[in-house]
Amino acid sequence: MRATVMHKAGDVRIESIPDAAIKEPTDAVIRVTRACICGSDLWPYNDLEETPRGQPMGHEAIGIVEDVGQDVHHIKRGQIVIMPFGYSDGTCPICHEGTNTACPSGGFFGSWDSGGAQAEALRIPLADGTLYPIDVGQDDALMPALLTLSDVMGTGHHAAVTSRVRPGVTASVIGDGAVGLCGVIAARRLGAERIIIMGRHESRLALAREFGATDVVSERGNEAIAKVRELTGGYGAHSVLECVGSAQAMDTALGIVRPGGAIGRVGVPHYAPIDGNGTFFGNITIAGGPAPTRSYIDELLPEVMDGRIEPGRVFDRETDLDGVPDGYRAMNDREALKVLVRP
Amino acid sequence: MRATVMHKAGDVRIESIPDAAIKEPTDAVIRVTRACICGSDLWPYNDLEETPRGQPMGHEAIGIVEDVGQDVHHIKRGQIVIMPFGYSDGTCPICHEGTNTACPSGGFFGSWDSGGAQAEALRIPLADGTLYPIDVGQDDALMPALLTLSDVMGTGHHAAVTSRVRPGVTASVIGDGAVGLCGVIAARRLGAERIIIMGRHESRLALAREFGATDVVSERGNEAIAKVRELTGGYGAHSVLECVGSAQAMDTALGIVRPGGAIGRVGVPHYAPIDGNGTFFGNITIAGGPAPTRSYIDELLPEVMDGRIEPGRVFDRETDLDGVPDGYRAMNDREALKVLVRP
Repeated sequence: MRATVMHKAGDVRIESIPDAAIKEPTDAVIRVTRACICGSDLWPYNDLEETPRGQPMGHEAIGIVEDVGQDVHHIKRGQIVIMPFGYSDGTCPICHEGTNTACPSGGFFGSWDSGGAQAEALRIPLADGTLYPIDVGQDDALMPALLTLSDVMGTGHHAAVTSRVRPGVTASVIGDGAVGLCGVIAARRLGAERIIIMGRHESRLALAREFGATDVVSERGNEAIAKVRELTGGYGAHSVLECVGSAQAMDTALGIVRPGGAIGRVGVPHYAPIDGNGTFFGNITIAGGPAPTRSYIDELLPEVMDGRIEPGRVFDRETDLDGVPDGYRAMNDREALKVLVRP
Repeated sequence: MRATVMHKAGDVRIESIPDAAIKEPTDAVIRVTRACICGSDLWPYNDLEETPRGQPMGHEAIGIVEDVGQDVHHIKRGQIVIMPFGYSDGTCPICHEGTNTACPSGGFFGSWDSGGAQAEALRIPLADGTLYPIDVGQDDALMPALLTLSDVMGTGHHAAVTSRVRPGVTASVIGDGAVGLCGVIAARRLGAERIIIMGRHESRLALAREFGATDVVSERGNEAIAKVRELTGGYGAHSVLECVGSAQAMDTALGIVRPGGAIGRVGVPHYAPIDGNGTFFGNITIAGGPAPTRSYIDELLPEVMDGRIEPGRVFDRETDLDGVPDGYRAMNDREALKVLVRP
């Protein structure tokens, strides 16, 4: 089958690899009908060192179940399913508590072991715990929106939940990528009174406003901090959704969070350890991590289905597998916001 | 008047200093009827460097209002009042949100500027926002319990709240000092199903059990972490109340917190920056800070008044001002748990 393999920074290829197949009795195999390129895929696109086999890419998908192992009891052949970016057993206490991305039996897609989703097919470990069947046709107009429940919409929601967005607060969203924009959607549906989006891309900021952002801060560094403080009477934001993961983003988050406020981190950390002293004296909460998107689907799916939220609008380009390498380039050049892949 | 001044590590003296007096129109002056020595006073008792004037000590008190400035409108002469360890205006958004210890106009007792409470009297800045009048006689039997609302009971409560103790969780309390013991009380009243106290002092652990602790872990370091994990099915505690502030205590907290769990920090940090990577991938929440005890009195006072909680039991020694230096020694030697002072 054909799949996306990144060999080193900037070198993404579509290659023939062995067909996805059942290995464990709890596995399923899905034919991927929709996948996409993630902002987090741009980290290796910029810094991956060359290895002999490279790295299979992609961790977001919707697919059709083609095969199930003998110990798979709930997932059936032919179902349309959302595949969250992490797999999990769904039965342990950690999963029951909703932290599926820390399931001791779980892991993440995008390696030779787990396979990558920017491919024709994919083996799904722990299929019963991982996959979420949805009752729609495989070409439903809502497919882009449904696909965001695999990662970006659930991740933006996680940033909002862990930064304690609640009715009446001021939320500040760092990053105008797909996750940040979904963070705006999430902050609005959780009741934020004011939503400050921090970014520099006109078209994305326009979309953020449509999603509910009330203010835009396009400065960076200390100027950005000063601007948010000015917008918040000097106090800062109650909830900071950190949707980037860079050192500058984290510094900004720490600079704009209000005493007693919270930072919800969903950008993969590329920064030094966190100051434990300043955050202590400010009573700042640092929370977040890899979003347990599997556990959020129950809450978010109905609003996607009835159009109350439209996270599918973060996709502004579509391609087949052959177009994936150029999709990486386009996203890295900020020419595309998020690329949907139809393998 | 007479007051406690620490000149350097181990050197605590009772000295004559200028009488407490109104300086600002928003000040009050209280005659201190009850004060105490705090576990956090032992940090300078062990490491304070010598200065010409030394440092006035004490930040917990109950007193009688002796004088008020012309802009004090709610606090009246003759009232019995609880003095929280931090002063705050009570009118700004940060105070309204309940984070009084981060009030931009506020500060902490225990300096030449703000004065120390281990003294005959004390000037109270921002008296209307800071002091909490209580309707009891000055020698009420509940005085020790009421005094804990100034700091340790509110601080243990803050550790429980910020570590998200809720019905059904397993809470682990690091430290068997007065704050840790109050943390046990707080964890129980917030519904923790299981409360693991971590400490090594028999009499304190016995009190912890009376307060509601269900398990005791007296190991240290990696052995303590292994023990808590063993007690929790390998997963760790949902809520970790970090009531010490040492590097070892924070390492233990990070080692025993469950994926998706939270650490509520109330021990003044004496540790390096916090790992932002491991906490991210474990979806660990780091929260807490100086407890806004002023804002917690409304919730805790009724339970102190009707005896549902008995935090006053953390006091196991009583002295007058002259006995304060020996009180420091006794607490530092772990001979006394917490010393009540009647100036």
